[in-house]
Amino acid sequence: MKDLNILPGINSPSDLKKLDDGKLIELSAEIREVLIDTVSRNGGHLASNLGVAELTIALHKCFNSPEDKIIWDVGHQSYVHKLLTGRYRQFQTLRTENGISGFSRPTESEHDIFFGGHGSTSVSAAYGIDRANAIKGNKNYTVAVIGDGAFTGGMVYEALNNAGGKSSRLIVILNNNEMSISKNVGQIAAYFAAIRANPAYFRLKAKTENIINHIPLIGKKLSTAIFRTKTILKNIIYGSSMFEYFGFRYMGPIDGHDIKHLRAAMEGAKMANYPILLHVKTVKGKGYPYAENDPTSFHGISKFDIDTGEPIIEGTNFSLEFGMFLTEIASKDRRICSITAAMEVGTGLTGFKAAHPDRFFDVGIAEEHAVTFASGLAKAGMIPVFCVYSAFLQRAYDQLVHDGALQNIKIIIAIDRAGFAGEDGETHQGILDVPFLNTIPNITVYSPSAYEEMRNAFVNGFYHDGGVVAVRYYRGKEELPSGYTPVNEAFDIYGDKNSKYVIITYGRIFKFAAEAANELTSRDVKIFVLKLNKIKPIDKNTVKNIVNCDKIFFFEEGERSGGVGESFRMILSELNYKGDYVLTAIDNAFVPHADTYALLNRYKLDFDGICETVIKNIT
Amino acid sequence: MKDLNILPGINSPSDLKKLDDGKLIELSAEIREVLIDTVSRNGGHLASNLGVAELTIALHKCFNSPEDKIIWDVGHQSYVHKLLTGRYRQFQTLRTENGISGFSRPTESEHDIFFGGHGSTSVSAAYGIDRANAIKGNKNYTVAVIGDGAFTGGMVYEALNNAGGKSSRLIVILNNNEMSISKNVGQIAAYFAAIRANPAYFRLKAKTENIINHIPLIGKKLSTAIFRTKTILKNIIYGSSMFEYFGFRYMGPIDGHDIKHLRAAMEGAKMANYPILLHVKTVKGKGYPYAENDPTSFHGISKFDIDTGEPIIEGTNFSLEFGMFLTEIASKDRRICSITAAMEVGTGLTGFKAAHPDRFFDVGIAEEHAVTFASGLAKAGMIPVFCVYSAFLQRAYDQLVHDGALQNIKIIIAIDRAGFAGEDGETHQGILDVPFLNTIPNITVYSPSAYEEMRNAFVNGFYHDGGVVAVRYYRGKEELPSGYTPVNEAFDIYGDKNSKYVIITYGRIFKFAAEAANELTSRDVKIFVLKLNKIKPIDKNTVKNIVNCDKIFFFEEGERSGGVGESFRMILSELNYKGDYVLTAIDNAFVPHADTYALLNRYKLDFDGICETVIKNIT
Repeated sequence: MKDLNILPGINSPSDLKKLDDGKLIELSAEIREVLIDTVSRNGGHLASNLGVAELTIALHKCFNSPEDKIIWDVGHQSYVHKLLTGRYRQFQTLRTENGISGFSRPTESEHDIFFGGHGSTSVSAAYGIDRANAIKGNKNYTVAVIGDGAFTGGMVYEALNNAGGKSSRLIVILNNNEMSISKNVGQIAAYFAAIRANPAYFRLKAKTENIINHIPLIGKKLSTAIFRTKTILKNIIYGSSMFEYFGFRYMGPIDGHDIKHLRAAMEGAKMANYPILLHVKTVKGKGYPYAENDPTSFHGISKFDIDTGEPIIEGTNFSLEFGMFLTEIASKDRRICSITAAMEVGTGLTGFKAAHPDRFFDVGIAEEHAVTFASGLAKAGMIPVFCVYSAFLQRAYDQLVHDGALQNIKIIIAIDRAGFAGEDGETHQGILDVPFLNTIPNITVYSPSAYEEMRNAFVNGFYHDGGVVAVRYYRGKEELPSGYTPVNEAFDIYGDKNSKYVIITYGRIFKFAAEAANELTSRDVKIFVLKLNKIKPIDKNTVKNIVNCDKIFFFEEGERSGGVGESFRMILSELNYKGDYVLTAIDNAFVPHADTYALLNRYKLDFDGICETVIKNIT
Repeated sequence: MKDLNILPGINSPSDLKKLDDGKLIELSAEIREVLIDTVSRNGGHLASNLGVAELTIALHKCFNSPEDKIIWDVGHQSYVHKLLTGRYRQFQTLRTENGISGFSRPTESEHDIFFGGHGSTSVSAAYGIDRANAIKGNKNYTVAVIGDGAFTGGMVYEALNNAGGKSSRLIVILNNNEMSISKNVGQIAAYFAAIRANPAYFRLKAKTENIINHIPLIGKKLSTAIFRTKTILKNIIYGSSMFEYFGFRYMGPIDGHDIKHLRAAMEGAKMANYPILLHVKTVKGKGYPYAENDPTSFHGISKFDIDTGEPIIEGTNFSLEFGMFLTEIASKDRRICSITAAMEVGTGLTGFKAAHPDRFFDVGIAEEHAVTFASGLAKAGMIPVFCVYSAFLQRAYDQLVHDGALQNIKIIIAIDRAGFAGEDGETHQGILDVPFLNTIPNITVYSPSAYEEMRNAFVNGFYHDGGVVAVRYYRGKEELPSGYTPVNEAFDIYGDKNSKYVIITYGRIFKFAAEAANELTSRDVKIFVLKLNKIKPIDKNTVKNIVNCDKIFFFEEGERSGGVGESFRMILSELNYKGDYVLTAIDNAFVPHADTYALLNRYKLDFDGICETVIKNIT
């Protein structure tokens, strides 16, 4: 990395305010050096942050954070903001345990206003702050910075509809890089692209208005026709950006890499007496050619070689195995469709899209629509598979209930990143899907440990089970005890089922449980494992296998309250079980970023934790 | 009621297709007679159905249901559709147990395509069917009928963004009556009202385009300026309805009470080779003056006198008591704000709005935005109270997690209609809020039985508890055992706590539990009641009060799986309780419409059920 002259001197935005535009341009170059260097070593979100270097500098030049609130949608584009708000020196700890988070995080800095892990929330949050300021007579600005990808999420329109026409201190900055994670799809993306490609569109708008105002030059008949309805015509002209229908004034598009223009636009936006939508064009990956050429790969990336741009090859994993399986089975069964909410690559659907383009649907960052759309496909005879991360499926809880389970139709949910998601932190941990699915009637949930079990679960969902079926699998590769043969049953017994003690678990933890059982048994603590594949509904016959044990140990990589461990305890009550029951799960906590295995260790869900818990409770 | 000549002969839409426009107009009058008569006796949604008589007739004249799919958003405007699809003779059973549902309901008729109890879902569902048809080569139409109120919900924009530009068989009918439940608010409502008021707006659009096409009449300079950018200008003109940005072609506005015009517009929409948005203007309450003049009161109404339009006065209830309390406390504390998602009247906020207009926010049918907006208000020092029905709060599960609990900021949720909602049926029952809130860390949940306990819970939420606090209360009036004095504690003991047996419950069931305990004790079955006011988190000290009992009976007016009864069982395990535990709750079921007390009886949650369950388990 080159020597840094300016960035190390920026301890707060006030240091930045002293610099002239020339120095700010130098600063943006230094920021890019640091971004590339740190992300190449720690992994993280690179391309989006490279794209907002100048935009973030201009924001901190023009606004006074934290009195003025800057809200990032989503917070993975806040690395530059972190570097400029006193976190340069800690930045090398990015995404490591107790280090800097990869998302905006209020507990980290007064400049991080909201957690920003889920998309399309910023305008709602900003408008809340803005209204509180209005009530209190506080004149500070509230700025939401939101990508064009997040404009595929419905919450933005709810917020625009509510906020439009009301505030003079609310500024929404549309960071238009034509990407969310992959290339954006849908009508709104096309619309933004059209304005982006042709700034003349809006200049012409003003010109046309001018022409109309001077139209007496034209013959009488025409001028009468037009003058009579001048107000209406003006409305048409003004209304020709979508935002104006929502009560926002449009400014733009501005070159998002030109600090001088950005500053001018922001100062203009501050002077307006109505809500502003400022459209900024940026280039995702700007300044690092590998990232500019392939922004999707450099959106969220693992460690990579700076000189070649090549990531470390990681081999197969659940996402890829799922994608291959689904593509293949869809070749045999023309009813199978796949749906993603802007996560084609992450959920392993690239092959499916290529093989079955007519049955592949990227709906944008729109999980609610995805589920109800799936419901429509199912009603008309398709077998829709909605492929989604655990942490984002929770956005469609109502749709799972109202348009899925209540209708009792066959919708398949492929839940990726179920369990700890590691370095992405609290907004991305997949530890709520089991509890919230557990609350919904008519749903079947599988939590396989092996690729083969995952495939079997989907086959059951497609051809045997009724209603909504969810198959959840963890991030990364299959983890199994050595020599274990996957099954296609609701449960499996590992070890001697006549033992006094039993460990119950599912998913990734099974490997640790089996190894712990082997170890404990070898130390004369006779214990076996009941491995659940189907975790909802729990068949009473499954439970009967263990009802004669003296002590039952349940380990769950998810929130404890409302989870399967609690439901299981209740079934044991009904079967009149009188032994001990020890439940280890995540107890009323959100889980910050750290290595997944460190987290499993912290929550006593790994080999050591399981051994320790058993030993402690039998002596 | 006048004699009906036509409606009794309509056994399916094919009977209607034989009638000419004159007869169809007569039919619409007969339909209004039946609507007014039945709703006056059974209660239900009147004003919206009166508004869609002609629209529904035209739909069934122009489309072939059920091959063509008609989807109602929401289904409370489907009464006319029910009358025309073979349900006239059963219609008098509207909203009664085993009778006709007050919402569209697939289990009732092949013409009811989706359950339609939650708003803004229709375009997503319709597009799913449309894509399945496209894949299969099926040429049938899919029609979503959606009110302007539902256009405040974000899902519609997710669906439009996804569907726009793609289909030639998808027709969205905007039923614009300028109302959802109350008068609509927000920018989109204002926009629809503007087009509605001035049809010339769009006629002018066409005319202007024409003018531009003939512009060579104008001087050279001007014509060059315009011709160079003719395409752009055309885009401006075309793009002057919001829907065109989303890839839909706009038609309208059409008089929604003129069957001939409606038919012509629908036939036109069928011939188009792109997705159509057909804008229909209707009058909510049309044909019944009391409803036309006060459509909000006649939106969802109890039994009323047809001649006077006067409903039976029902006295106070939790919603009204809550509203009065909140209005008063907000006079003393300027930080308190109230938020409703288009439910001002239903949630009791009319007085608050009048007293504190600057702190009252109707955000539209936008529960997600409501919670994140509240999060913004809270960040900036306000105390926001989101007032919402239980069944609709589930739409904001992710926001409760991501923007509420994770941030650990003070947002108060006032949950109305918690527990059975009676005649509104499965989409409106408030039986999931306890389970889904139970899954979220950092949340405090109160479930009072008395008005006084409700007020105390809010005071605790405002001034003592941290983080997100929910107070849930049931539909209707306070129900208490005679002589009971409300408390302000996490729990209360009713009866002799040294008894062998205990009943645990919360909310409405407490009255029945207390009466059952009195009755059983008088029969020498010594039993007391542990009444929970705070149901999450459960304090272990609460549980210690009962850990020496022989048998514990838990009764819960909510889904069993993931609920508090299961969590409570687990705490007992930790305290080494070895007695019996019997949990009575709603087991893996959606609950159809019926009288609330009939439902409590069915699920063994009333006096009889509690006595029966205790007796059965102690002998």
